[in-house]
Amino acid sequence: MGLPVSENDFYSLHGMWGAYASLVLGRIGNGAGVVIGNVQPPQRGLFIGYKRRSEAPRLLPFIPGTKVGLDASAYVDPDAPAKPLGLQAEFTCFTAQEIRRTITYSGEEWKAGQLSFKVHSFFGSVPDPASADPISLRSSIRPALYVTLCFDNSDQSEPLTGVFGMQGIRRPLSDSTRCSLLGFAHGTEWGFAVLPDESIDEVMDWNAIDAAFNGNRPLRRLASEGVLRFKVNPGEKKEYRIAIGVYRDGVVTSGLRTQTYYSSLFRDLEDVLENALQEASGMLDKALKLDKGLEESDLSEDRKFLLSHAVHSYCANTELLISEKGDPVFIVNEGEYQMMNTLDLTVDQAFFELVYTPWTVKNELDLFRIRSSYTDAYGIAFSHDQGVADSFTPLGTSVYELPRLSECFSYMSFEETLNWVLTASLYVSRTGDTKWFAENEVTLEACLISMKERDRNRDGILDTDSDRCAGGAEITTYDSLDVSLGQARNNLYLAVKTWAAYVCLGALFTRFAPEKRSFIEAAQESAQWAATSVQSRMLEEGYIPAVFESDNRSQIIPAIEGLAYPFICGWPELVADTGPYGSFIRSLQQHLNTVLVPGACLDARSGGWKLSSTSYNTWLSKIFLNQYVAEKILGFSDSRVQRDKIHAKWLRTGSAQWAATDQVHSSDGHDMGSRLYPRLVTAILWYLYR
Amino acid sequence: MGLPVSENDFYSLHGMWGAYASLVLGRIGNGAGVVIGNVQPPQRGLFIGYKRRSEAPRLLPFIPGTKVGLDASAYVDPDAPAKPLGLQAEFTCFTAQEIRRTITYSGEEWKAGQLSFKVHSFFGSVPDPASADPISLRSSIRPALYVTLCFDNSDQSEPLTGVFGMQGIRRPLSDSTRCSLLGFAHGTEWGFAVLPDESIDEVMDWNAIDAAFNGNRPLRRLASEGVLRFKVNPGEKKEYRIAIGVYRDGVVTSGLRTQTYYSSLFRDLEDVLENALQEASGMLDKALKLDKGLEESDLSEDRKFLLSHAVHSYCANTELLISEKGDPVFIVNEGEYQMMNTLDLTVDQAFFELVYTPWTVKNELDLFRIRSSYTDAYGIAFSHDQGVADSFTPLGTSVYELPRLSECFSYMSFEETLNWVLTASLYVSRTGDTKWFAENEVTLEACLISMKERDRNRDGILDTDSDRCAGGAEITTYDSLDVSLGQARNNLYLAVKTWAAYVCLGALFTRFAPEKRSFIEAAQESAQWAATSVQSRMLEEGYIPAVFESDNRSQIIPAIEGLAYPFICGWPELVADTGPYGSFIRSLQQHLNTVLVPGACLDARSGGWKLSSTSYNTWLSKIFLNQYVAEKILGFSDSRVQRDKIHAKWLRTGSAQWAATDQVHSSDGHDMGSRLYPRLVTAILWYLYR
Repeated sequence: MGLPVSENDFYSLHGMWGAYASLVLGRIGNGAGVVIGNVQPPQRGLFIGYKRRSEAPRLLPFIPGTKVGLDASAYVDPDAPAKPLGLQAEFTCFTAQEIRRTITYSGEEWKAGQLSFKVHSFFGSVPDPASADPISLRSSIRPALYVTLCFDNSDQSEPLTGVFGMQGIRRPLSDSTRCSLLGFAHGTEWGFAVLPDESIDEVMDWNAIDAAFNGNRPLRRLASEGVLRFKVNPGEKKEYRIAIGVYRDGVVTSGLRTQTYYSSLFRDLEDVLENALQEASGMLDKALKLDKGLEESDLSEDRKFLLSHAVHSYCANTELLISEKGDPVFIVNEGEYQMMNTLDLTVDQAFFELVYTPWTVKNELDLFRIRSSYTDAYGIAFSHDQGVADSFTPLGTSVYELPRLSECFSYMSFEETLNWVLTASLYVSRTGDTKWFAENEVTLEACLISMKERDRNRDGILDTDSDRCAGGAEITTYDSLDVSLGQARNNLYLAVKTWAAYVCLGALFTRFAPEKRSFIEAAQESAQWAATSVQSRMLEEGYIPAVFESDNRSQIIPAIEGLAYPFICGWPELVADTGPYGSFIRSLQQHLNTVLVPGACLDARSGGWKLSSTSYNTWLSKIFLNQYVAEKILGFSDSRVQRDKIHAKWLRTGSAQWAATDQVHSSDGHDMGSRLYPRLVTAILWYLYR
Repeated sequence: MGLPVSENDFYSLHGMWGAYASLVLGRIGNGAGVVIGNVQPPQRGLFIGYKRRSEAPRLLPFIPGTKVGLDASAYVDPDAPAKPLGLQAEFTCFTAQEIRRTITYSGEEWKAGQLSFKVHSFFGSVPDPASADPISLRSSIRPALYVTLCFDNSDQSEPLTGVFGMQGIRRPLSDSTRCSLLGFAHGTEWGFAVLPDESIDEVMDWNAIDAAFNGNRPLRRLASEGVLRFKVNPGEKKEYRIAIGVYRDGVVTSGLRTQTYYSSLFRDLEDVLENALQEASGMLDKALKLDKGLEESDLSEDRKFLLSHAVHSYCANTELLISEKGDPVFIVNEGEYQMMNTLDLTVDQAFFELVYTPWTVKNELDLFRIRSSYTDAYGIAFSHDQGVADSFTPLGTSVYELPRLSECFSYMSFEETLNWVLTASLYVSRTGDTKWFAENEVTLEACLISMKERDRNRDGILDTDSDRCAGGAEITTYDSLDVSLGQARNNLYLAVKTWAAYVCLGALFTRFAPEKRSFIEAAQESAQWAATSVQSRMLEEGYIPAVFESDNRSQIIPAIEGLAYPFICGWPELVADTGPYGSFIRSLQQHLNTVLVPGACLDARSGGWKLSSTSYNTWLSKIFLNQYVAEKILGFSDSRVQRDKIHAKWLRTGSAQWAATDQVHSSDGHDMGSRLYPRLVTAILWYLYR
């Protein structure tokens, strides 16, 4: 189903899994292109369109109107009488009204006039490189995506000329491949290619659009624009498959020396593109199967969009590296912030990774244990992240956390410890990886001791701050929200998440190490204390205040967030209103029922979910997760939960520039932070955790 | 001697020899910084300055006023009540009037207030990596330069805080070196460092200047600004040595797979910086010796400036690569155009390279023979260049040349063949490398045959165009000038250069292969024809027209250019007015005497040299070369030749933005093309070819 015309003008970040690279496009009249080592939308022209004899060329609206690189005028005497160096291209771009845009699980499609343009960038599961054979890895860890172009000239009596091309290229691929590929590249780093065919040729020019539609000029190898030109005969409808690929060679990180994993599988960009095109049929079949699966699900169109959009941006942030010892090192970069493996994102992204790449969850847990754990005055804790912009931090430190603060940029020692425990519980319980559990049992035990140590008054809830804070106070992942979600101590959201971690530890050891009786009891004891403490805070008004201090009266949705973990680990009885924690669960049901009203946690203007009654800053990844808990665990199914149309609109209008934005304003969805973000894949819960 | 205040606002391109990287700085109020793989001035802040207790900080004016990367506001709720995230730094930049700027052979110096800031980037000779030992190569092919900072606090009673830093960095170097270096880096690619000392610390912050001068904040590793902070006690005058280095890993070129040569000698950026700092004393001694040599020469201050400025930009364009077989591959990139080894630049730069790196001339000649020679209808010829932007073209082709043209972008087959012959003659005659001569004798013979074949009417001058032109016409290196210098056929400039090539071939074989009698005679025969033809074109007015066609009446200086080659090869008798070509030489003397007048080849407004009477586009590299011929060979010594003050002013004012610009307007020196160019090192002739 196509998107409404009023909502088809937004960027998509078509990530190539594991390559920290993407094709960005979609804002009408704005630039597009390939980006590597970051996620910012390039402001270059992406040329896709066609010309039929009697008409002006029509192009998709991905042309920012600025030149990239030098123009021909830089080479000739600027004071000489002006001579046209190539006519100014005359073309018109399709308008939003003429375009039908559809987001799919594997990519997206644009239809306009006689043209259909599809991107396929997501291909589902990726096998563990530690155990998969190298041939299959070349298919699944190939830094490439596909574009298919279809030109329908079936009702015409004259030939049609189609184009696909980009600004910013510097060389034709026929040069380096002896014409086994046609296409263009920017250095050794990125490019696009097609297998040769007599109907296709390369056009490289100061003004490639003009050159493509006006005769046959020789390749101008000094120029920075290149297009593939397709001749479609009268009466024909033809489809072309183009691969877009990237390549970064050599050591790309500091702090820990690693190379791109794919550089151990591919020789260069040409190898990537050639291999991609050889395997196009199989890969496109895979993509279509993914699309069909989601299409045939009973998810609403808005949820299908939200999930697909999230997956594309998640993939754009993924980066698979290889250490000098040959071990895979998996990183999810944090959108515009570029932080590496932010642990409070890892726990939310684990739901997605456990479906498609469960081994990356293990890889992240191991890397956090090795690089990001430390010991403070209370025991083991974990750092917020592992570096920024491909620069790894020293062991046990993050780029984010600073001492002597009590808000954004303070330490998250306690929550990150919960996050490691919860991610480990999810991983072990869903994969049954007893080997990994055995290797990490000691660490999990240390985590329990550390968690309990931070509960000085034995009420199950954090009541002290890491000494790393040096007089400051710990915060939560909701770092830019107000105190209702931001402060760690005596915080409702964190208290329930703490309860979940204790519950999961107890259940995990009951299943995998039942002989550890005292450990299990210690975990269950704290879980009970936490549940009791939370329940005891219920106010007459029927909700639990966000912070158990300073007479706080904020109402927050993420009170229920923590319930997700025991449920997804496979212990639904622990979150059942009839189970061992039944009265606690019923309190949270009552809480949600109270706060989910306009003016509190439903935005009075838009009707969208507002995580906190006292902040307009609301986070989509967390909305999706809490919606899931509300529906699947707490049994809410009415219109207060079904706000997906509003949330989808936020991403397609208010935050259209930043695919996908996590932190948006609840009144209209405009971006407030966390742009180009990977975390929104919590939407996978709706689809594959039913 | 410092520059006049009105001429101290221009960019310098401080190249690191062989690294295709430089530190760019010098425009007042504009950005600065390190650039790799290109020569465009980065628009980032370069922070150099100090604060004394009671005064506002003073900084050198290298601050464009824009932020690089995200600001702290991206992380916090933008709708929350504003809190200062660090005070806006209050400082003042030194004005042009307060600054004393001096360009030196090895770098430059800025003095302002209590501060002296020096750059040392040029260190003279580089040994041939094919025969030098790796340890000495680490010193000479190290991609680094030095900054020395001196803070004079000797007359103060309070401590002084000095800073050196940059925008665009992402990590402190203490992290990856366990504090064996202090400094900052951008990824794995560039950085600056100092050896640790108790008076130095690292400051990394959203606003590093503010942080540096206001207390002790922890490093904000998410920020993109970093400075080194120096504490200078009352009564002290302290000097600090900082290394700036770059590193590109892996395969960096396409078409021919090569890596940076230095990556075979250094492990990473940290290794480069550490090694540079260890060897700082020796390297700075070397630089000071170079400076002293030029300073003590009898060159005018303007010539000292012109040569030094040229050398810095030349170094910025040099790139030493290593092939997969382990062979060095030397490239000079063509300024803003980024063409690789443009042969009509190579011949001009050979004068410089034969002094400092004679082996690079051999390397270029070999690479041209292997990659860039081809056979057209008349025999062997050479391509204009070998690629663009690190992308090598296929064998026998250039990025520049196109068929069916008769101006800019047409073929230069004939002139490039002359250029190869002349460069080979210079190389062999000045180095006495008989081994190379023996290996290339066959190619030189093929060149002679090809040259003579293009002289259909046996008048010594080109009168046909390569069939690669496909109906177009060959051009000369003066591609953006008018027909007076642009057309190859029947062109005075090219005719004299042709004469020079024949003369050099004859003399070269007479010395190194005297048994090749018929070859020598064939060369001398054509030289005589060319001399006679040129002389026969002398007009009553006392000059030879630029083109021997269409009643052309342009007057050009480069008629004399070709005389440089036999002279510099060591055969002054061949260009003596009393020698075997005496009457030809005297004709050219007369020609120059006629054209070197205001309104013809002296610009009527500025008085600077105008290469052609019919174009305002004049080229500084060629002015220097022709000045040398006029003075040393033709005996001109009056004020018509001594126009260096005008030419220096052009570079320091009209083309201040583009260090160094070759093509400038003769009225005021404003840039017309060939910006950020390497070719101006023809100025070496004044200094070391006396």
